[in-house]
Amino acid sequence: MNTIEVCFTPKLYSEIITKKNFIVVMVDILRASTSICAAFENGVAAIIPVATLEEAKAYKDKGYLVASEREGVVTGFADFGNSAFNFMTEAVRGKTIAYSTTNGTQAIELAKNAQAMVIGSFSNITFLSKWLIQQNSNVVILCAGWKNKFNLEDSIFSGALTERLLQSTDFKMDCDAAEAALDLWSIAKINPLEYIQKAAHRRRLKKLNLDDVLEFTFQMDTANVVPLLKNGVMIGEKDI
Amino acid sequence: MNTIEVCFTPKLYSEIITKKNFIVVMVDILRASTSICAAFENGVAAIIPVATLEEAKAYKDKGYLVASEREGVVTGFADFGNSAFNFMTEAVRGKTIAYSTTNGTQAIELAKNAQAMVIGSFSNITFLSKWLIQQNSNVVILCAGWKNKFNLEDSIFSGALTERLLQSTDFKMDCDAAEAALDLWSIAKINPLEYIQKAAHRRRLKKLNLDDVLEFTFQMDTANVVPLLKNGVMIGEKDI
Repeated sequence: MNTIEVCFTPKLYSEIITKKNFIVVMVDILRASTSICAAFENGVAAIIPVATLEEAKAYKDKGYLVASEREGVVTGFADFGNSAFNFMTEAVRGKTIAYSTTNGTQAIELAKNAQAMVIGSFSNITFLSKWLIQQNSNVVILCAGWKNKFNLEDSIFSGALTERLLQSTDFKMDCDAAEAALDLWSIAKINPLEYIQKAAHRRRLKKLNLDDVLEFTFQMDTANVVPLLKNGVMIGEKDI
Repeated sequence: MNTIEVCFTPKLYSEIITKKNFIVVMVDILRASTSICAAFENGVAAIIPVATLEEAKAYKDKGYLVASEREGVVTGFADFGNSAFNFMTEAVRGKTIAYSTTNGTQAIELAKNAQAMVIGSFSNITFLSKWLIQQNSNVVILCAGWKNKFNLEDSIFSGALTERLLQSTDFKMDCDAAEAALDLWSIAKINPLEYIQKAAHRRRLKKLNLDDVLEFTFQMDTANVVPLLKNGVMIGEKDI
C-alpha cells in the first residue's frame, strides 16, 4: 500500500514521515505550477528552475528566455513573468526557459533529491493522477505556500489530488494534513474559484492586477502532461 | 480591529504576521491543554511548565508534584502523566505541579515572550473567548501539533475558537490558516468526537490504552478558567 502525505509549507518538509521511495508533487497553484503545466502543453522544450535572481540573470546573459518574478512582479531583466498566459504563446514553443519565482522554484530546489519530482496543478490533475497511480510509489504533496506560510489554494489542490489517488485502492492517507486537505477540498470543490476569493494571496494578486489568469487556474484538465524534474531540468512527460 | 492568526505547528511560529501586541493561545488538545484547564478548575494552585525531563526531575527532587510524559507514556520518576483525570483528584488541590509533555510544554516555551500566553481547550472555550474579547488584543492560536507536524485535533479547536472570536465585531481573520481551521471546524463540529477518530494521534493514544479521557476532552465548558503564564509560572485566571 502506498502512502499519501501532504506538506503544507516547505518549512515542514523536513518533518515528513516517508523517508524513502517517494515522489514529490510540487504545488504552487498561484501561479508557478499552473504556468509550468501550460508551458509543456504548449510545447515548451524544457524549463530550468532557478532559485535565485542572480542565476536567472546568468541564464538571460547566456541567451535563454527567462521567466522571473518576485512577489507577483516581473523582475527587470526577465522576458516575462509568472502568468500561465505568458507560457502559452507561439514564441515560447520549442524553447528552453529559465524560471524563477517567489515560492515555487525554492520548493522545487528543496525536493530535488526525492526519487522523482513532478508538478501538480488543476490543469493536469487527471493526467497526473493516472501517472502517479502507474508509478506505484509513495506520494508527498509539497505545497509551496506563501513565504513558508500555509495557503488555501495549494491546500485545496492537495485535497483534490488526494481524492483522485484514493480512487486507486493502492493508496492510503498517512497523515492528518492529508485528511485536512481532503476535508477542505470537500468544501471548496463545490466552486473552487469562489472558495479561493478568501485566500490572502488571491487578494494580493488582485491588488497587483495579476488576477487575469485566475479563472484559467481553476479549470481542470487543460494540460495532458506531467512536468518532471530530471538532473536539474524539467521536461514534459506525455506518456502514460 | 484585532486580528486572529492560526499557527498549525510550533515550527511555523516564526512565520506569524503579527509582530507586536498579541496574546498566544497555546493548544494541545490531546492532552496537555485539556489537562491544564482541568487542573485549575479543580483548584490546583500553580503549574510550572518545564521543557526537559531533566528539569522535571529537578523539581521532583525539590519535593514538587511532577506530571510528565513522553509520547503518551508516564516517565519513571513522575507522580502521574498527562491524563486530565490525573489533575482532577483531591490530592492535587492547592498544590503546585511541575509539568512536562512531548509537545505542549515546548510550545509554551516558544511563546513565552508574547504579551501574554494562555491555554485553550474545548473545556474552557466559552470562558476563554469572553476573556480574549475583553483583552482587546491580537490573538495568535498556536497549535502544539505532533512533533512539529500538523494535527487535526488542535486545528479544529483553532477553528472553534476563531468562530467564537468572530462573534465579536472587534476581530477579523488575518491568514489562510485561520480560514482553513474555521472550515475544518464547520465539518468537525457536527460531532467532534467522531470526527477525531481519523486523527493519527487519536490512534496513537488508543494503541497505548490512553484514550480513556477522549470523551471528556471534547466536552465543552467544564472549566471556567483561563490558565495564564506569568514569569514562567502558570496560574488560573478566574475573573472576567
